[in-house]
Amino acid sequence: MELALGEHERIDDLQYKGLRIIQNPNKFCFGTDAVLLSGFATIRRGDRVLDLGTGTGIIPILLAGRQDEARITGLEIQADMVEMASRSIRLNQLQDRVKIIKGDIKDARDLLEMDSFDLVVSNPPYKKLGSGLVNPNSSLAIARHELLCTLEDVIGAASDLLRSGARFAMIHQSDRLADIIYFMRTHRLEPKRLQMVHPNKDKPPNLVLVEGIKDSRPHIKWSRPLFVYDDEGNYSQDIKDIYHIK
Amino acid sequence: MELALGEHERIDDLQYKGLRIIQNPNKFCFGTDAVLLSGFATIRRGDRVLDLGTGTGIIPILLAGRQDEARITGLEIQADMVEMASRSIRLNQLQDRVKIIKGDIKDARDLLEMDSFDLVVSNPPYKKLGSGLVNPNSSLAIARHELLCTLEDVIGAASDLLRSGARFAMIHQSDRLADIIYFMRTHRLEPKRLQMVHPNKDKPPNLVLVEGIKDSRPHIKWSRPLFVYDDEGNYSQDIKDIYHIK
Repeated sequence: MELALGEHERIDDLQYKGLRIIQNPNKFCFGTDAVLLSGFATIRRGDRVLDLGTGTGIIPILLAGRQDEARITGLEIQADMVEMASRSIRLNQLQDRVKIIKGDIKDARDLLEMDSFDLVVSNPPYKKLGSGLVNPNSSLAIARHELLCTLEDVIGAASDLLRSGARFAMIHQSDRLADIIYFMRTHRLEPKRLQMVHPNKDKPPNLVLVEGIKDSRPHIKWSRPLFVYDDEGNYSQDIKDIYHIK
Repeated sequence: MELALGEHERIDDLQYKGLRIIQNPNKFCFGTDAVLLSGFATIRRGDRVLDLGTGTGIIPILLAGRQDEARITGLEIQADMVEMASRSIRLNQLQDRVKIIKGDIKDARDLLEMDSFDLVVSNPPYKKLGSGLVNPNSSLAIARHELLCTLEDVIGAASDLLRSGARFAMIHQSDRLADIIYFMRTHRLEPKRLQMVHPNKDKPPNLVLVEGIKDSRPHIKWSRPLFVYDDEGNYSQDIKDIYHIK
């Protein structure tokens, strides 16, 4: 059967509305950042949603859980990830409203309708090239390093695919915030909502959640900081809420 | 005598190295933001320093306290503030290394030597024009609203006056961070160090401290967040340290 698991694959329960996901720990498993982004993005009834670089499909699955009446597309360049993510969509019986398509973010304008999406999300590779050796064939490397697309590729594609007034939501490393804001503005995605993510309240942030609105006016609404761990080293209440941990 | 106090003026003790300042509560008194910026800026022995929009002269006085061997200039457009700040400099016997000059930030390139400063600091007016009525003759309005100079005027002047590789440090409202980063990058001042200032750990930031380096490469080093009040509503230890409160 097509839903049969491949070698090294496993099914993880997302502990949220009965949703599950197929993952292969020998390739890449989703992280906290994908869950944070799925909780941060503003998703509305009837939205057409696109996830750029969807990987395992974790973000479309979590967003489908948040909003029944959204149609969601995940774009992914790696054929084996597309196939595995598609099986996860069927596993959750989401195939009527979520589809995974194979393609390069740099070709997204040809593969998808321009100026048409209400929400584009992305958890892109964080690391610039040029520091250290990277295996170009590894799924992990493609997910982590800007091997196949740069930050500006992601932001430029998002802008072209969003209708004017629509939303872009991304998580990225906080040390790249200047690039993020600069490229968003130069590509008409004005940063409107920011939240910094800190390991705990005594540490600098390491991640940033950003929402931009296409063609909007400058003004950032800041959310209170997200501390992953509390003073005792346990998950904070905010993280428990995002993960639906009781 | 020229050090005599004018009507409504008073002398405030800065509780730091015996420094004092003349202020007029009917015009404008310095706030926490100036003290935070003076603590945040990187100042080194021998630095040539410029404060754009120096007002009472609080930042040059505090920076002179931090670094004996820096030469500091404060530029201020309001003649009465220039005169009062100059009296404060003499009150502290800093006239050999701190001078206050009258001038418009937009004319700074003509008044001062281009590409010459090691550090430019500014605590500029925060509010964009266009919302509400503003009295254009009030010192308070000039300090708060972009009546006489915009954010981009400040950043552009700072960049032209700094030598390549030198530092720009500013405090501003966090809701304007996109403008700040965008204008800094377009004026060759790459944002390199950021610190968000929050009323307390459960609130979003309202201010941002930013350091840029002229002609540097993109990479932001984040400082841990600065919480002004602790959970009991008292000044936090960080604030006590910055204010030299024991």
